[in-house]
Amino acid sequence: MRFFSDNAAAVHPAVFKAMAEADRLDTAYDGDAWSNRLDATFSALFEREVAVLWVTTGTAANCLALAGLVPPFGGVLCHREAHIQVDEAGAPEFFTGGAKLLLVDGPGAKLTVDALEDARSRIRPDVHQVQADALSITNATEYGLTYSAAETAALGAWAKSHGLGFHLDGARFGNAVASTGASVADLTWRAGVDALSFGFVKNGGLSAEALVLFDPGLADGIRRLRKRSGHLLSKGRYLAAQLLAMVEDDVWLANARAANAAARRLAEAAGQRLVYPVEANEVFLKVSAAEAAALRAQGFDFYDWGVGEARLVTSWNQDMAAVETLARAIEGL
Amino acid sequence: MRFFSDNAAAVHPAVFKAMAEADRLDTAYDGDAWSNRLDATFSALFEREVAVLWVTTGTAANCLALAGLVPPFGGVLCHREAHIQVDEAGAPEFFTGGAKLLLVDGPGAKLTVDALEDARSRIRPDVHQVQADALSITNATEYGLTYSAAETAALGAWAKSHGLGFHLDGARFGNAVASTGASVADLTWRAGVDALSFGFVKNGGLSAEALVLFDPGLADGIRRLRKRSGHLLSKGRYLAAQLLAMVEDDVWLANARAANAAARRLAEAAGQRLVYPVEANEVFLKVSAAEAAALRAQGFDFYDWGVGEARLVTSWNQDMAAVETLARAIEGL
Amino acid sequence: MRFFSDNAAAVHPAVFKAMAEADRLDTAYDGDAWSNRLDATFSALFEREVAVLWVTTGTAANCLALAGLVPPFGGVLCHREAHIQVDEAGAPEFFTGGAKLLLVDGPGAKLTVDALEDARSRIRPDVHQVQADALSITNATEYGLTYSAAETAALGAWAKSHGLGFHLDGARFGNAVASTGASVADLTWRAGVDALSFGFVKNGGLSAEALVLFDPGLADGIRRLRKRSGHLLSKGRYLAAQLLAMVEDDVWLANARAANAAARRLAEAAGQRLVYPVEANEVFLKVSAAEAAALRAQGFDFYDWGVGEARLVTSWNQDMAAVETLARAIEGL
Amino acid sequence: MRFFSDNAAAVHPAVFKAMAEADRLDTAYDGDAWSNRLDATFSALFEREVAVLWVTTGTAANCLALAGLVPPFGGVLCHREAHIQVDEAGAPEFFTGGAKLLLVDGPGAKLTVDALEDARSRIRPDVHQVQADALSITNATEYGLTYSAAETAALGAWAKSHGLGFHLDGARFGNAVASTGASVADLTWRAGVDALSFGFVKNGGLSAEALVLFDPGLADGIRRLRKRSGHLLSKGRYLAAQLLAMVEDDVWLANARAANAAARRLAEAAGQRLVYPVEANEVFLKVSAAEAAALRAQGFDFYDWGVGEARLVTSWNQDMAAVETLARAIEGL
Repeated sequence: MRFFSDNAAAVHPAVFKAMAEADRLDTAYDGDAWSNRLDATFSALFEREVAVLWVTTGTAANCLALAGLVPPFGGVLCHREAHIQVDEAGAPEFFTGGAKLLLVDGPGAKLTVDALEDARSRIRPDVHQVQADALSITNATEYGLTYSAAETAALGAWAKSHGLGFHLDGARFGNAVASTGASVADLTWRAGVDALSFGFVKNGGLSAEALVLFDPGLADGIRRLRKRSGHLLSKGRYLAAQLLAMVEDDVWLANARAANAAARRLAEAAGQRLVYPVEANEVFLKVSAAEAAALRAQGFDFYDWGVGEARLVTSWNQDMAAVETLARAIEGL
Repeated sequence: MRFFSDNAAAVHPAVFKAMAEADRLDTAYDGDAWSNRLDATFSALFEREVAVLWVTTGTAANCLALAGLVPPFGGVLCHREAHIQVDEAGAPEFFTGGAKLLLVDGPGAKLTVDALEDARSRIRPDVHQVQADALSITNATEYGLTYSAAETAALGAWAKSHGLGFHLDGARFGNAVASTGASVADLTWRAGVDALSFGFVKNGGLSAEALVLFDPGLADGIRRLRKRSGHLLSKGRYLAAQLLAMVEDDVWLANARAANAAARRLAEAAGQRLVYPVEANEVFLKVSAAEAAALRAQGFDFYDWGVGEARLVTSWNQDMAAVETLARAIEGL
Repeated sequence: MRFFSDNAAAVHPAVFKAMAEADRLDTAYDGDAWSNRLDATFSALFEREVAVLWVTTGTAANCLALAGLVPPFGGVLCHREAHIQVDEAGAPEFFTGGAKLLLVDGPGAKLTVDALEDARSRIRPDVHQVQADALSITNATEYGLTYSAAETAALGAWAKSHGLGFHLDGARFGNAVASTGASVADLTWRAGVDALSFGFVKNGGLSAEALVLFDPGLADGIRRLRKRSGHLLSKGRYLAAQLLAMVEDDVWLANARAANAAARRLAEAAGQRLVYPVEANEVFLKVSAAEAAALRAQGFDFYDWGVGEARLVTSWNQDMAAVETLARAIEGL
Repeated sequence: MRFFSDNAAAVHPAVFKAMAEADRLDTAYDGDAWSNRLDATFSALFEREVAVLWVTTGTAANCLALAGLVPPFGGVLCHREAHIQVDEAGAPEFFTGGAKLLLVDGPGAKLTVDALEDARSRIRPDVHQVQADALSITNATEYGLTYSAAETAALGAWAKSHGLGFHLDGARFGNAVASTGASVADLTWRAGVDALSFGFVKNGGLSAEALVLFDPGLADGIRRLRKRSGHLLSKGRYLAAQLLAMVEDDVWLANARAANAAARRLAEAAGQRLVYPVEANEVFLKVSAAEAAALRAQGFDFYDWGVGEARLVTSWNQDMAAVETLARAIEGL
């Protein structure tokens, strides 16, 4: 019974079905009928005109966006534990041409205006120090916390007041939407977000993520860099079809709700053991080494997270019987 | 009836079947059972130990290889009409950190030792000029010509004598193998090739290409750069499964033979109109504007190629009746 | 008697004198009194407001300018034999983050609107090909030809009509000004030039070149990249003082005239042997190997330039007696 | 009376004299007689064969070294307050092609094996995290502390045990040598240092720093990158002459001793106000805003350093009467 991550789960049947329907000759790259439907489909979802590019990984989505928002000599304010800083092998530096991540702290990998302002104000506005050109946040965060629409809007207003671009890493954006109940518009462009990495692969997709651009001026350069970075697949219709399948019937939202529900059940069981409130599909538990071993002996797999902590992640298709068994095992520790 | 390109054709059923079989939870990235079988499967095909990485595009395969073979201040000898120079949006410069493509001429986008030696000898061996660090060729070439095993070996020997790495862009490598009848070993490592971009997408695949490394010292750095460039998909098993399906039952070879056969039929019809000998699945015809229009009026789609020429490309699943119809139409011009 | 190059000659006394006068404590980097006078001094010379940055090499000036004019995924139209392509070790690729030089031909390393338009029109306006974002010319060219104000203006108008930035490599700009008799304004911003690498080192300077920006929007980013590329010297006043010494008393123009005059004398002697008209301080001669040996036997040093040609370069302080001796030696061949 | 920094002081007369002696025609770039003497002169000083390149800034020296020691996808362990992290505008990222600085803490910007081992051990050895490839320290540190030969050797042994390159930023290396009394060999290659940025500009030089390479395998690539980054001046003899003047008569050591002595006098006066021990030519004082204002009212200029601290830097030619006056003013606070 695996609670390692949501990024290796099986694929939702609707995704495979859509790919099979796309299995006929069409124009290469993103000139096909499926790719051509993306902008309209996502524009309807986001209640305004957006430009959407398919890419195959969240890393590509994040770093294409950042390369659009900062010059090579620029800087990106982000959390010290942000995925772009910790787990993308220097991809932001690669895509941007050597921009610098400017690291800010905060509990649960969540940023506040106060922490950002403190960091920004310490940068001397001269040519010797890398200046901040953009802000990047993750919703839900790497520790499963969410930003509400109001929190996002506060960050967006602050970013705009300093002329910063605003990127949202939404590897688990669906979980954040399901958890907060906010509209996708309120969590993004209405809050000042310029570019969203809208993750589908962790949420039942196969190999397609959406890079959603609210600033239309970004699209041309990013389309060029998508090709230049080897991310323009020739049979792009199979990626577009995945995104359409996830969005057109709200599969993404149903999947996120299912994963969140599984996590909530574990959170109830964990009680005082919780390191962070459970606001998405990740559960961080305080457990001793002996307790972790006891859970593993019962067949549960998960990551140790530093000393005395464990990380459990639930997926869109998590077996609820297994979740219940695990919940009781946690309660019984 | 489309003869635009082989890069937008439908996918071979074995590929879809293999992806469906991979549709269950496994380890993320390339830690899964399918990815773990790649090295052995390709090593058997190549008659020696190789390291294989899946990637989603030929551009990524080519440029990861080049980044492994040349330093950022280095140079790559290639044909002036090579795909890496003409159609990859500067991806070689991006992946290598700004290395320079050093352009060499030759009919049909094919290189010879003489032409290479002439180019290399013009480079002053000082710090003011970019030095050649690698050679990259394409087999079959961008104009559908092939390099025989002996021709490749001559280039490889020359490259080694000057300390150059040797990359082979095999976007249509299957077609070259089918056409020359040479073994994949003789066309690559036995001829001195260090890294092969083994293309499957143009040959019936969906989204998986293989980067085959004969120099094991290249693998560690290239694996890091694959992640860093956003090309390490979390559900990598669906890519590995595609490659295994193409290789394990020689689907790649059967598909290449079919495409080549279709092109040969067109070549017979074209006769004196051929710009180049047809050695793979591309046919370049001399046609007047009126003749091109006449063919299009009969329902055939293809690219104009400069003034007075047309490019026809056949695919693994090209409808042979359509090919026959087109052949007769060409004969009837 | 050396005619190798103008880039190793001694330094004009006024330059040393100015450096000695600057030898007292002042603010570091470019905050000193000398650096602060640059903009006004050059603005007077150019008859409009300009921003001027000192740098230590022409390569740095050229490539900082290009990095300001093109995005990393962009392209620079230039001559196939331009210094930035041939002799800067890939510096344009390094500073721009991997932009591509798009090479155009023309006699004497000189470009025309027709040749440029032909090259530009062959670029497909899609994401697969690197687009042209800027034009870079060299005046005087690498073969000692000059662009008149009218020729420059024609190129500038063409560049602007296609939305291209316009960079002028003026390593020997002084020689071009002296030769054409045009004003520096007519040869630059009035002709549409956005950024000028104004060379002084080949013309009697020590270690200071001027990057002159006519588009004020370029200055902020380029100032940052100057620091980032290690080109912001802490004792910048010694560089600024060099530039002021060269400009404030028209030393640059007198020096250029002297070098041009020496070259003209050689050109008269060369007569039919000239490969190109001599319009600056470089003389390309047709000479047999025996003739070249004969000149060297008389104590003259110079570069062979391909087979059957020799390059002679005159400097600001070329000994006119030696020039006369060489002229007669050439006449006597 | 200025105590802002040592980087804007006047130039030692021996440096100007040497430049004047170099003021005659010679070979361009680094082919001249002065540049050719560098390796031997520094080899004698360092008691072993070394390769030496002149460059114009410490940033260039540091970042050329780092680019030689780490791949573009690599990482450099350094202090969170290291100059390369804080004050070089992202130059390390630019020169290395996007490598990451991996930040470590420690009082006074000084690193220990324990702190480094703690940081290194937190990096997962997988492709998702940037690995450490090199260590960079500064001696004397940004806060004027020194590493003894034994401390450096401990760091070097640790670096080698993990396969890391070892770079020493010696912007104030002379001050460290003067202070510790160790030999330059013991503070560098005998302690495992691969590359040293040997600073002269802060110590009485004009525009020449020395990049000293103990690993001869580094020289070829770094020489190429020096050109590629625009740092190969054509009249290099004027830089080489500066370095020779500083080294051949131990001017560098005398200058460093003078600056250190001035700082020691201030340290005695400061007593309990010292934030760090004064081991080089920088003095950090605890002073209230009123006290700082009082000192300024007496004509002393210096930097505020955060709240309640001031930084005083002494130069090679600091007027000792002014130092004495300042010392008494501090005592009188």
